[in-house]
Amino acid sequence: MKKLINSPEAVVDDALKGMIAAHSDLIKVYTNPNYIVRADAPVKGKVGVLSGGGSGHEPMHGGFVGMGMLDAACPGAVFTSPTPDQMLEATKAINGGAGVLHIVKNYTGDVLNFEMAADLARAEGIEVEAVVTDDDVAVQDSLYTAGRRGVGVTVLLEKMVGAAAEKKASLKEVKAVAEKVNAQGRSMGMALTSCTVPHAGKPTFDLPEDQMEIGIGIHGEPGRKRLHVASAKEIAAMLMEPILSDLPYKSGDDVLVFMNGMGGTPLIELYVMYNEVNEILKGKGIKIARNLIGSYITSLEMQGCSITLVKMDDHLLKLWDAPVKTPGLRWGV
Amino acid sequence: MKKLINSPEAVVDDALKGMIAAHSDLIKVYTNPNYIVRADAPVKGKVGVLSGGGSGHEPMHGGFVGMGMLDAACPGAVFTSPTPDQMLEATKAINGGAGVLHIVKNYTGDVLNFEMAADLARAEGIEVEAVVTDDDVAVQDSLYTAGRRGVGVTVLLEKMVGAAAEKKASLKEVKAVAEKVNAQGRSMGMALTSCTVPHAGKPTFDLPEDQMEIGIGIHGEPGRKRLHVASAKEIAAMLMEPILSDLPYKSGDDVLVFMNGMGGTPLIELYVMYNEVNEILKGKGIKIARNLIGSYITSLEMQGCSITLVKMDDHLLKLWDAPVKTPGLRWGV
Repeated sequence: MKKLINSPEAVVDDALKGMIAAHSDLIKVYTNPNYIVRADAPVKGKVGVLSGGGSGHEPMHGGFVGMGMLDAACPGAVFTSPTPDQMLEATKAINGGAGVLHIVKNYTGDVLNFEMAADLARAEGIEVEAVVTDDDVAVQDSLYTAGRRGVGVTVLLEKMVGAAAEKKASLKEVKAVAEKVNAQGRSMGMALTSCTVPHAGKPTFDLPEDQMEIGIGIHGEPGRKRLHVASAKEIAAMLMEPILSDLPYKSGDDVLVFMNGMGGTPLIELYVMYNEVNEILKGKGIKIARNLIGSYITSLEMQGCSITLVKMDDHLLKLWDAPVKTPGLRWGV
Repeated sequence: MKKLINSPEAVVDDALKGMIAAHSDLIKVYTNPNYIVRADAPVKGKVGVLSGGGSGHEPMHGGFVGMGMLDAACPGAVFTSPTPDQMLEATKAINGGAGVLHIVKNYTGDVLNFEMAADLARAEGIEVEAVVTDDDVAVQDSLYTAGRRGVGVTVLLEKMVGAAAEKKASLKEVKAVAEKVNAQGRSMGMALTSCTVPHAGKPTFDLPEDQMEIGIGIHGEPGRKRLHVASAKEIAAMLMEPILSDLPYKSGDDVLVFMNGMGGTPLIELYVMYNEVNEILKGKGIKIARNLIGSYITSLEMQGCSITLVKMDDHLLKLWDAPVKTPGLRWGV
């Protein structure tokens, strides 16, 4: 195993130390339990927006804490749900009196722990609502999931929900934005290589030199099928067909396209893939209203990509375009 | 070879198609010969800033075209200098009457081709100056270089030079900024894995499972030494000592730290490394005034990192903080 780390035990704590050393203008980092909050939290009268999940998916979620996006994030161990005590402390730290929304990716451990944290916070008098993302069309149930997995939509949802909260929308309104984005978003991913969890010390799965996995999860959980490696055009078609047919997306729709790298994918390849996605959508009369291209929800050093589409309307476009200032995503300020 | 491409021959053109499909609000892309210019070029009365180099280092340079950074970039084939005709056409396209600055990384092919392009442009009545970056302290001469290689400083220099040009500084002033940043900047990199050039179809070099290369170049050219893989703390010390002692950087200095990923490095590892760099600088009384953390000058899917330090002053800090709006780097707008 080759990694730029000190030890498998230290990787999350060391990265958090790096985060606070780099971004103390934007965030505060608490340890024992670990959570990250925006520097000016709690913002009075604003809905607090909290997410969290296993580490190894950076910049998600900690890199999205800041003005216009998340108020807090709870990093678990690598590929492991954070614990309810982390979520409870973070919820309390960002409670500005208007309630707190939990954004939860649909993995069984995350869902259970966030439910427990919400109950504990409610017992302390904080109004908490939750939304569970489940945008991955690859598989119905999965290794760690009942129902579909929550993947790329989570990043886009955190941006738009954060913008709504920043404008002092109510908890009910903020939750409605989250539910709309999740309902109108679909994703699918693929891998050329495995990743290696530091504690495990060896690749999560074996993928022969001539094979790729279509429909992979963000923890290396199995997808739909293994195939001989194919061209970017063929791969784009394989990922786009299930996405487009599932909602379905139709001619005349405006969409946000998120071309995501899995962590070990060079940017030049994401642009090659984006070109193929653009060609497919042009052929169907679907208009790309906005795009995001880069590695924002990752699986350590895995090579591969995922595609997420969200059907947009004027309200969502305004929320997407609103200023954001986080370590991982920034514009307008 | 596993890559998200259609063919080795098509990768650069396909990625350029993706760039224009994604960023037509920021850039225009010309083909035959290939070059990228900002959407509003030429900007009258402004010095035009042009860079270029082999592809495979994305987002550098094409991803840095836009307001506040480059006016144009010329992408060559992967790891291959662009040609003088590309550079000449780009120079003409961004000539707003105040002259054009060429930013050239010190590789023999790039230097010769940019010199020829400058001569051709001057023959057409355009005032052209050039600055050559040579910030890599790893080796004196290299496989493709007489003198030191130009690496990470190039990204930071393009940002600060672009800001000076945006403020309508003269060609002489803009060139002086470039020379200052290069003179006050030092870099060193390392690799955990090789990369594979699409045309070659196999890794550029063999690096055994327990070895790393210290002082690697951005094309996989040899560095200083091969060693057994070490901890992040040890690697940071190995990269920082030659950087700090070369200028030298001293207690009381303000520096910009650029913690760069080589393309296949997960962000969590860059934060672990940044923490170690921060500890080393704290110990020496050197203040990190600004930082940039991410994969901005890459070597395809190579795993590894490079560290760049630039000694900053009030003038450079203002240029660094100025608004920038490019596909790869954006803030303030």
